[in-house]
Amino acid sequence: MATETGITTRSQDYSQWYLDVIREGQLADYSPVKGSMVLRPNGFALWDAIKNDLDRRFRDTGHVNAYFPLFIPMEFLSKEAQHVDGFAKECAVVTHHRLRAVVDENGKARCEPDPEAKLEEPLIVRPTSETIIWHMYGKWISSWRDLPLLINQWANVVRWEMKTRPFLRTAEFLWQEGHTAHATSQEAVEEAERMLGVYGDFAREFCAIPVIEGIKSANERFAGAVETYTIEAMMQNGWALQAGTSHFLGQNFAKAFDVRYQTEAGQHEYVWATSWGVSTRMVGAVIMTHSDDAGLVLPPRMAPTQVVIVPIWKSDDEKTRLIDAGRALLATLKAAGIRAHLDDRDTLKPGAKYYEWERKGVPLRMELGPRDLDKGQAFCAKRTGGGKFGLPLGDAAAVQATLDAIQAELLERALAWREARTHRVSSYAEFKTRLEADGGFFLVPWHDDGANEERIKDETKATIRCYPLAWQAEAEGQSCFFSGRPANRMALFAKAY
Amino acid sequence: MATETGITTRSQDYSQWYLDVIREGQLADYSPVKGSMVLRPNGFALWDAIKNDLDRRFRDTGHVNAYFPLFIPMEFLSKEAQHVDGFAKECAVVTHHRLRAVVDENGKARCEPDPEAKLEEPLIVRPTSETIIWHMYGKWISSWRDLPLLINQWANVVRWEMKTRPFLRTAEFLWQEGHTAHATSQEAVEEAERMLGVYGDFAREFCAIPVIEGIKSANERFAGAVETYTIEAMMQNGWALQAGTSHFLGQNFAKAFDVRYQTEAGQHEYVWATSWGVSTRMVGAVIMTHSDDAGLVLPPRMAPTQVVIVPIWKSDDEKTRLIDAGRALLATLKAAGIRAHLDDRDTLKPGAKYYEWERKGVPLRMELGPRDLDKGQAFCAKRTGGGKFGLPLGDAAAVQATLDAIQAELLERALAWREARTHRVSSYAEFKTRLEADGGFFLVPWHDDGANEERIKDETKATIRCYPLAWQAEAEGQSCFFSGRPANRMALFAKAY
Repeated sequence: MATETGITTRSQDYSQWYLDVIREGQLADYSPVKGSMVLRPNGFALWDAIKNDLDRRFRDTGHVNAYFPLFIPMEFLSKEAQHVDGFAKECAVVTHHRLRAVVDENGKARCEPDPEAKLEEPLIVRPTSETIIWHMYGKWISSWRDLPLLINQWANVVRWEMKTRPFLRTAEFLWQEGHTAHATSQEAVEEAERMLGVYGDFAREFCAIPVIEGIKSANERFAGAVETYTIEAMMQNGWALQAGTSHFLGQNFAKAFDVRYQTEAGQHEYVWATSWGVSTRMVGAVIMTHSDDAGLVLPPRMAPTQVVIVPIWKSDDEKTRLIDAGRALLATLKAAGIRAHLDDRDTLKPGAKYYEWERKGVPLRMELGPRDLDKGQAFCAKRTGGGKFGLPLGDAAAVQATLDAIQAELLERALAWREARTHRVSSYAEFKTRLEADGGFFLVPWHDDGANEERIKDETKATIRCYPLAWQAEAEGQSCFFSGRPANRMALFAKAY
Repeated sequence: MATETGITTRSQDYSQWYLDVIREGQLADYSPVKGSMVLRPNGFALWDAIKNDLDRRFRDTGHVNAYFPLFIPMEFLSKEAQHVDGFAKECAVVTHHRLRAVVDENGKARCEPDPEAKLEEPLIVRPTSETIIWHMYGKWISSWRDLPLLINQWANVVRWEMKTRPFLRTAEFLWQEGHTAHATSQEAVEEAERMLGVYGDFAREFCAIPVIEGIKSANERFAGAVETYTIEAMMQNGWALQAGTSHFLGQNFAKAFDVRYQTEAGQHEYVWATSWGVSTRMVGAVIMTHSDDAGLVLPPRMAPTQVVIVPIWKSDDEKTRLIDAGRALLATLKAAGIRAHLDDRDTLKPGAKYYEWERKGVPLRMELGPRDLDKGQAFCAKRTGGGKFGLPLGDAAAVQATLDAIQAELLERALAWREARTHRVSSYAEFKTRLEADGGFFLVPWHDDGANEERIKDETKATIRCYPLAWQAEAEGQSCFFSGRPANRMALFAKAY
């Protein structure tokens, strides 16, 4: 279905469409290491944009960055009982620290791990850093004066995955992990909820993704957490994608690594913890929320190139005049802080340029022909569609207003899409029928029960994405759609990535 | 010699002084993984500052960022013959992808690598990424239109090291590695030289380190390079520190990974390559170039906090008035783009605050007492010393000018230090005597000879740091200080980190 130059349509094959959009946008490529992807410049630029915006939000809420080792002693993973179950299964294990050259039976030289360079204790490539960070916190925290400790790390992590999908699930991925230490349970809960809010605002304001904030059910909680908060987004096929999580870890890691502090009153208490993370998965969420059958669509705030200027000439005289005008427009836009690019290549015709920038997701194209120039305007096309329109050449504010409108349009469109596909059902039979027929999100009254949750998952592949914070009050007085018992939660069910 | 709160003087023990400055500045800490350090927030902020400044310079010279996998297939390392010799010796080898829980003879549970999860082909944790990147370039490059390819990566790398030193030599470290592909040898050489220039400007302008640009001797060349360019800095003990390198790789990697392109004329040619890198080592260079017996000294352009404001009060009335004035000053400075901090803690006396900020390297302290406030000024102390002086409170430009002066002063001071310790000698006997007595750099006429170079290294521990570009013309007509043969180079010898 996919061809070297074409993009499969979403209705034909949503999974293949996703891979085609990534290939045509030159966002990522497969690597010779199974499960690891290469982030090509266009794809890395999206992660970089996410990183810069999130980092500013972390600083604004009082956090600082640090860097902890890639390797974790094997024994650390077993210190927190649930944590080892969650992560030991799927990690990369370093056992040697040297290769040696050997000659095989055919006289050919090759390398192998040097048996004389075997590590006494194997090392794990971090799947997440709670253990090593809490080991260090034990050295740094002794008094109430050392708290709160609000540290974030930008890093690569590895979780061995067999079935991989670019951005969504890869053995190695990039992320940030915040790890905070607090004097009281209340402060730590507030921190976990604050960062959930930061993630929600970031997703809506920067990525134009209308996420739902909620609490994970016990079955879906992070290994080692007391409570896991999540932001959940709906993709265009109606599936959910968990786009960020924030955990209240209680005193689990403080106890596992014996991290206590002296209170103002002189007592020794275990420290309270949170951790929270967003990864390159967010790039996948952006692609699947906004893109269309013509390729990538990017929200202007996130787009590395927000505006592309395409001069259109027929003669050499025209060419000089139009490229000069394009340069002037470029300078005007750049001076106003707009990320613009002038495509003055003479190896491609205008139509081919449109096609290329379309699939690279540039939000606004400004065409500059001789007649446009005479009128002192550019002829504009929004990547989100609609008719073409003129914008005066000297007016950077009008261009910025157009970009702002595209940003708002993408968020509204995604919200409308989600609302049209969020269903309320009152029985399990109806749930199964509609899930099969329409897919999407199901907001239902629910009586907490891990076994029932498991049964629904086995039968329908749908899971509880979260207990959405905004709708909890509605549970009052209702019956669980599955068990008929009094509902104590409103639950959001969906199939998920 | 080092105490929990004290800093060993440089004259007592330079090595211990370095470790003390790092500990007291809370820049780094030892980790439970041998050879890996933790970059604490104060230390990471220095790397972050370096990263931001360099990244801007890379963009300005046309480079884009990407991200390649952490793991490299073992067989890749043996594809470039010299490269395998250089890097296979000291790398982390991943052999398993899962742990399993086992119960030992005492009934205690522990983890071990799961024998059923052994990788068919071991993976190497990247010591540098030429091999995997050139594998990918083989997929991306087919025509002259694809060239030049100018990609940089910010990443962690691992080279197994037994004798480690924070920032200078650690098993895992952070760095950037640029990897470029070009149509011609000349273009690639130009690129390698351009990046050497970028590194030199960056070191001088941002880090206030007067580096010497030069070419490495064949013995000191990067494994796989045709030519290695370097920037070399002098530390306060007269030792050299290699602070960045840029390599012209010829067609070595293109041939190893079979990367050819079609020329405009339709022929197929191997691609020409460069690579270049700067690492967290640069943080060590900054520490050892500028700091003093009272602790860290930071160049203002690099300092996360450039100015600390310390209000001095005796009564509660004074406290309110002075903290208000401090806040106003803080706002004035921040509005002017100066990174300032107000230390309004009431748990510490002013003297203790001075002491703390001094060892954290903050370039300018502005004290604000009641009498200063009456005069509308702050009483200022430069971290670089000299008498205290008043600066008017509303005048951010005067503060910026003071910071600029400190930046210039640090560069001049380091340059004067280096010049006073750079010797010209005409015989090996004199070389040995002065190296023993005074240390420092030795700029000497030299006849290229790897065996002689090795002998000098064995006898004196001094090595050729580089053939400094600025002094090559002087070799003409001189005799080699060691062999007496006609000199074809001016060489810079020194002991080095």
